[in-house]
Amino acid sequence: MDRTSIAGIGLGLLAIILGQALEGGHLASLLQPTAFVIVMGGTIGAVMLQCPLPVFMEGVRMAAWVFRPPLLNPMDTIAQVVSWSYTARRDGLLVLEGVAQQLSDPFAAKGLQLLVDGVDPDDLQEGMEPELEAYEEHLRLCAKVWEAAGGYAPTIGILGAVMGLIHVMENLSDPSKLGGGIAVAFVATIYGVGSANLIFLPMAKKIMVHVGHRIRLREMLLDGLVGIARGENPRVIESRLQGYFPKLS
Amino acid sequence: MDRTSIAGIGLGLLAIILGQALEGGHLASLLQPTAFVIVMGGTIGAVMLQCPLPVFMEGVRMAAWVFRPPLLNPMDTIAQVVSWSYTARRDGLLVLEGVAQQLSDPFAAKGLQLLVDGVDPDDLQEGMEPELEAYEEHLRLCAKVWEAAGGYAPTIGILGAVMGLIHVMENLSDPSKLGGGIAVAFVATIYGVGSANLIFLPMAKKIMVHVGHRIRLREMLLDGLVGIARGENPRVIESRLQGYFPKLS
Amino acid sequence: MDRTSIAGIGLGLLAIILGQALEGGHLASLLQPTAFVIVMGGTIGAVMLQCPLPVFMEGVRMAAWVFRPPLLNPMDTIAQVVSWSYTARRDGLLVLEGVAQQLSDPFAAKGLQLLVDGVDPDDLQEGMEPELEAYEEHLRLCAKVWEAAGGYAPTIGILGAVMGLIHVMENLSDPSKLGGGIAVAFVATIYGVGSANLIFLPMAKKIMVHVGHRIRLREMLLDGLVGIARGENPRVIESRLQGYFPKLS
Amino acid sequence: MDRTSIAGIGLGLLAIILGQALEGGHLASLLQPTAFVIVMGGTIGAVMLQCPLPVFMEGVRMAAWVFRPPLLNPMDTIAQVVSWSYTARRDGLLVLEGVAQQLSDPFAAKGLQLLVDGVDPDDLQEGMEPELEAYEEHLRLCAKVWEAAGGYAPTIGILGAVMGLIHVMENLSDPSKLGGGIAVAFVATIYGVGSANLIFLPMAKKIMVHVGHRIRLREMLLDGLVGIARGENPRVIESRLQGYFPKLS
Amino acid sequence: MDRTSIAGIGLGLLAIILGQALEGGHLASLLQPTAFVIVMGGTIGAVMLQCPLPVFMEGVRMAAWVFRPPLLNPMDTIAQVVSWSYTARRDGLLVLEGVAQQLSDPFAAKGLQLLVDGVDPDDLQEGMEPELEAYEEHLRLCAKVWEAAGGYAPTIGILGAVMGLIHVMENLSDPSKLGGGIAVAFVATIYGVGSANLIFLPMAKKIMVHVGHRIRLREMLLDGLVGIARGENPRVIESRLQGYFPKLS
Repeated sequence: MDRTSIAGIGLGLLAIILGQALEGGHLASLLQPTAFVIVMGGTIGAVMLQCPLPVFMEGVRMAAWVFRPPLLNPMDTIAQVVSWSYTARRDGLLVLEGVAQQLSDPFAAKGLQLLVDGVDPDDLQEGMEPELEAYEEHLRLCAKVWEAAGGYAPTIGILGAVMGLIHVMENLSDPSKLGGGIAVAFVATIYGVGSANLIFLPMAKKIMVHVGHRIRLREMLLDGLVGIARGENPRVIESRLQGYFPKLS
Repeated sequence: MDRTSIAGIGLGLLAIILGQALEGGHLASLLQPTAFVIVMGGTIGAVMLQCPLPVFMEGVRMAAWVFRPPLLNPMDTIAQVVSWSYTARRDGLLVLEGVAQQLSDPFAAKGLQLLVDGVDPDDLQEGMEPELEAYEEHLRLCAKVWEAAGGYAPTIGILGAVMGLIHVMENLSDPSKLGGGIAVAFVATIYGVGSANLIFLPMAKKIMVHVGHRIRLREMLLDGLVGIARGENPRVIESRLQGYFPKLS
Repeated sequence: MDRTSIAGIGLGLLAIILGQALEGGHLASLLQPTAFVIVMGGTIGAVMLQCPLPVFMEGVRMAAWVFRPPLLNPMDTIAQVVSWSYTARRDGLLVLEGVAQQLSDPFAAKGLQLLVDGVDPDDLQEGMEPELEAYEEHLRLCAKVWEAAGGYAPTIGILGAVMGLIHVMENLSDPSKLGGGIAVAFVATIYGVGSANLIFLPMAKKIMVHVGHRIRLREMLLDGLVGIARGENPRVIESRLQGYFPKLS
Repeated sequence: MDRTSIAGIGLGLLAIILGQALEGGHLASLLQPTAFVIVMGGTIGAVMLQCPLPVFMEGVRMAAWVFRPPLLNPMDTIAQVVSWSYTARRDGLLVLEGVAQQLSDPFAAKGLQLLVDGVDPDDLQEGMEPELEAYEEHLRLCAKVWEAAGGYAPTIGILGAVMGLIHVMENLSDPSKLGGGIAVAFVATIYGVGSANLIFLPMAKKIMVHVGHRIRLREMLLDGLVGIARGENPRVIESRLQGYFPKLS
Repeated sequence: MDRTSIAGIGLGLLAIILGQALEGGHLASLLQPTAFVIVMGGTIGAVMLQCPLPVFMEGVRMAAWVFRPPLLNPMDTIAQVVSWSYTARRDGLLVLEGVAQQLSDPFAAKGLQLLVDGVDPDDLQEGMEPELEAYEEHLRLCAKVWEAAGGYAPTIGILGAVMGLIHVMENLSDPSKLGGGIAVAFVATIYGVGSANLIFLPMAKKIMVHVGHRIRLREMLLDGLVGIARGENPRVIESRLQGYFPKLS
């Protein structure tokens, strides 16, 4: 569990609620189905129009990473690559063919298979790079679902506020309703600016950090395979791979 | 059919209409020819001034991609390239000359012809790159028609609103018309902000995804031709090309 | 003549005028010397302060490209380079010395002279690149005159509006003048936002497209000269150069 | 002590306080717990949601650098590297093993160990680069804590102001409270815009300068180690390393 | 003297003054010590907090370049480099040692010394690059002092305006003072937006052009030294260096 995420969302919402209470306002005056329909409907609609369906679905699913970060064990991967490198030195590359067929990660399996096939180190690097780039581009596109929501929500909040103001202005003849009407109109702004700045944009940034780790893990794996293909010393490979995820003070 | 696009546009517009209804306003008060003339006329005018005519026309035509995505079959192209590579191995490059002359895609035909002419792999890569770059730049320029519209529409919407406010202010002597006048003025903002955020900008992003796929398909094709020129193993070529469009979970 | 540019500017201005007419306002209420002096004076002043004089003058002159696009005949240049390449093959490089001295374009003349001097292909590339980069940077700087104008105009329009509002507020004692005063103040916003979005920014983008073509033409020329220096087949050179300006459907 | 930082913060706050005094307002009217709770709670919440915990903690700690800049002695590091280079020339690389084990900086220790192990210069460069990049990315991520705070604070300030305005509008029936209510609402804007522009954003920029120095110090160290591995002349190494932190007039 | 700069600042300020006069307002109503204290104090404070002291001082000094452009004589530098190249051809590199010791520019002196020491051309390039990059980064950082001022001034202007509005709102009971109070509040916006758009930002851009020339001059010098180290023909060196500062029509 990523408790900082939960504390962050909680603190942001609490600040709004507490602020409203301290001002002597009712929380109920911030709850308004109309504004909610406009801001959330418009934002989701814009994001759906922007994203191909698989990207949209994957992006939505990535929200879970904010609270339950995906398990990445770079140390396990390093240990694995280093053990392959010892095996390759001792028993030759062909012995790794069985390992390749049992790997669950198709990227690692493909790379190890190319290694077993005796492909040149440079060709191994070049042969895997298109997939690495496509993977990176796909993950970033998915993570941008939340960045997009954070971009559309405030402007659609303003749209909702202007719609509310139009409604108020058309009924100016009854001044007693003026204030209440404007108050209602402004709630759409709260929803748009609040959801973007307290939820969508920070989530997008945290997801992007996890995406960066995933991509770096694959870069590290490929670097290790190329090292084996070059016949590098296993200890040199291990030392270099550990640099991808250093212990930072 | 890209149903997500249709659902996205539908959801966005529905949110506006439903919101207006929930607030007890008439939909008619959001329909205003004057605001429409200013915002759409100004936006189209600005985009036309910005874009050379062929770019403008192509950009407008690309809007169809949002709802009916262009058919790209990377797997077919891979199969084709791999079959050429087997032919080249078995029967020599010259046999491919007939194939080159029958290809409908001029980019593929030109590349295959250079391959048949026995051009060096590096020269093949360099010889095709200017065209690849010009193609990429042209497609991106066309896709930016919608990004531009999404950039101009909100500011021209504000222009329309200010024009409306000027009209209202000049007639302040009749206060009973004040509210209605302001309401009318604000509709231009709705048109500008709404069209940009619910339609133009999301469309631009989705078109850009399709543009990215088109460019990647040509990069993949060229990569395959260079592989054949290098005399690479067809299975190695196939494996590398598949990485351009990986199956992503 | 670039009719799309004329149509674009015309459509944008027509939308404003027609919108004003449809609202029942007089066009005269949008014509205001004071606002014009502030917005245009401030914008021109800021751009002059920003740009060295030759850049400013060249940038202003580039505005003509928007309506009368500069003639660029890449096909002529390709034919020329290809004919040089045949001459070099048949009669040797020295024969081109006479050609170099008669070229009106100093960039082409310098490159051809280096070629005649028997400079290494890589050194020819490196020897011309500083000039290519300086040329590109200069053209982009000039084209940014209009981008800068489009950036300053709206904020100076707001400056003018605030100045107008200050004037109105100081004379609040006479409420009958309030509306008219605010109306006048807002015209500065119209001038700033309108000139930027309907004229300056779209012009800047179209000029940038022409600038891009000019730069690409020189890159193509240099690529051809390097090809001749390498002793490449004239047909290979022609095929590669045509890729710089492909026929795009 | 970085007195410019202290003077900068002091001058900014003094300008606000003095300005308020000159206008004849009480400082107390700018002190408002509600606005403070909303703006600071919301901003901290958003930043916590955005950043993984170690990044957040490290970023907060970096604030100390603004007032007490971290001691970086590039000249000491250069002297150290140059002395290693003399030792390596005189006594061979193996003598440095003892030095490597006593270094407190793990990055320098790892690099020196690779050097002692007799790794190829290019492999030394490549072997250390992943760690250099991970370090750079981590530091930049931490410094962005303050950039993020500077981005969220103004919009959350507007959120607080809109909440205040809603409260005012709901109680329009008592006009005597109108002015005071609006005044209170606006204080949230002051907090958001002020904290961002007078504190958070300038701090982020200054921290980024220190981060840049740290990264450059490591690049310099690695450059020196590679130079030793290449067997370069110690004086050439010293001259090149001094270029990383030149005395600038 | 850069007369365009003076004309630009003059025109911008004149537009404001003339505009105020044409509207029938007094210039005095735009002169307000309180707003000046807030906007200038806040802006200078923020810039000081952002910049290390030497960067801040150098950045402030660069303002002189806007009116009195620094003398850069690329043609002199080219002549110098070409003469060194003839000397090196005729008398050998060692003769240049005396020249190196008399150069006032430490960058040129260091480069020439490395050349005299017989360093490899590639090592000469690499050995000078860290200093070139540090120099470029330092100059750009200094020039950003004015960009930063142009970024902070408008938001601090808004801060001042909101402070003024708070003061007005607290004294709503006396409506006769309302207009004047709002007028005073708005002057802070004029100062912030005006100083940024008519002075700070255009100055920053012009300074950046001069910075670009300085950097290019050093790149040209280094390119020439590397050419001498390679034993290139002096005429080839001259032709290439002239490309860094071409005569542009």
